[in-house]
Amino acid sequence: MQKQLTKKNERVEEVYNLFIKHIQNFLTEAKLNHEEYTNFVNWADRLGRTGELPLYADVFLETHVLRAMYTDKPGTQPSLLGPYFVEGSPLVEKEPGKPLVLTQRPNEAGKPLLFKGNVSSTDGMPLANIRVEMWQNDDSGKYSSFDSDAPKYNLRGHFYTDENGDFEVKSIVPLPYSIPADGPTGEFLGYMDQHPMRPAHLHLMFEADGHETLITQVFFEGDEWLETDVADGVRTELVTKLEDKNGRKEASLNFVMRRE
Amino acid sequence: MQKQLTKKNERVEEVYNLFIKHIQNFLTEAKLNHEEYTNFVNWADRLGRTGELPLYADVFLETHVLRAMYTDKPGTQPSLLGPYFVEGSPLVEKEPGKPLVLTQRPNEAGKPLLFKGNVSSTDGMPLANIRVEMWQNDDSGKYSSFDSDAPKYNLRGHFYTDENGDFEVKSIVPLPYSIPADGPTGEFLGYMDQHPMRPAHLHLMFEADGHETLITQVFFEGDEWLETDVADGVRTELVTKLEDKNGRKEASLNFVMRRE
Repeated sequence: MQKQLTKKNERVEEVYNLFIKHIQNFLTEAKLNHEEYTNFVNWADRLGRTGELPLYADVFLETHVLRAMYTDKPGTQPSLLGPYFVEGSPLVEKEPGKPLVLTQRPNEAGKPLLFKGNVSSTDGMPLANIRVEMWQNDDSGKYSSFDSDAPKYNLRGHFYTDENGDFEVKSIVPLPYSIPADGPTGEFLGYMDQHPMRPAHLHLMFEADGHETLITQVFFEGDEWLETDVADGVRTELVTKLEDKNGRKEASLNFVMRRE
Repeated sequence: MQKQLTKKNERVEEVYNLFIKHIQNFLTEAKLNHEEYTNFVNWADRLGRTGELPLYADVFLETHVLRAMYTDKPGTQPSLLGPYFVEGSPLVEKEPGKPLVLTQRPNEAGKPLLFKGNVSSTDGMPLANIRVEMWQNDDSGKYSSFDSDAPKYNLRGHFYTDENGDFEVKSIVPLPYSIPADGPTGEFLGYMDQHPMRPAHLHLMFEADGHETLITQVFFEGDEWLETDVADGVRTELVTKLEDKNGRKEASLNFVMRRE
């Protein structure tokens, strides 16, 4: 027998046993036959080998994890972290009296956007000087670090709220985009007769002492994919207006973090 | 938008929707948090990229598919197909008056085994001249075609029952073995505090017109891993005696196939 790689973990055992209990109910109701099981495993093997498993999980499973965790709780609803988060984004330096500028190339293509936010606690207090991480796609609909020629951290950065819990950041308007649909995830989309599009969105992650980390997204009214987002990431309170102001687009949203 | 790779498939949609319904129940009961979800996805990504997903599924999921399908039905219980089946095994030629000899190397190491079986239908009629596929590991506990120096189809073959539904095949006694435990599947085994061993077994697959294909395994009394098989593949009626006879080991089991 080989040496064990990991130590007993009672939480893994608990979660696995609950998973099997509910999977047995699923199998009984779905009456899956052996050929269907084999077809599923062959597809899942292709999904895994092509590295698409995190994509598939984040598009088709993560929303259910979030809904089960959070729907009844106060504070801003989370949305998907998704497969395009990258650790280690640069600090966006604050210049006095000016909005922050999200890491970008000189003459970054796209419609200029000023995004404003405020972060407070569920008890109503503003959360000053807390860490905000922001990432988004570019004017070609691509995320840096993923199938993109842009520098690794393009349109990715982190910064801090001011003494009132406010922040203002200049970027570009993100675009709706198609998740990769030429592999096993695309096979699945075809079977489901589901398009591969996500509405345009900003990704935001907030970290504050004594509060649950908030991972969420911001969407824009009028986007044609809001109602049928392939990843089911849209929540009504996360949709804001994109307005023409000062020769650019402006949008804002307030965020409320839950105490731990 | 990219062109769809596959056509709408209502059965996939039905099964997926039932899966999500039961997964929602699982998530609500397990209270999975986002960090646990992320840890799971990272592990599943490693599982997929290393090609271990079919191994994991066959060891930890297939038994539940089989139990949900078959437990209440008449006829021989199926057991796992497992990840070590290979298409295209050679025909084992019958020499008049002699037992069949499963494809093997000259002087194949191991204890000689004569395995005898009879195949009948749930209505009691013997199934003559039906196709039997057999595969097993060798005296080093390895399956040909998988991490083995043996020829591709060593200890793999197919043959046909005689006019009474009987067959007799010479082989070697299979060994208990450890499933691969040095990768993500091994990580999981460690968390579950579960050993990686399977009891010794023969794999058999029977195909007959008008009957459901029967995929099953044969186990041997006294094997130390029968009660704790990592893959939960043992069924009481699939356990037979391994007896010393005629200077070799002999075992037998009768198989009953279900009408479609």
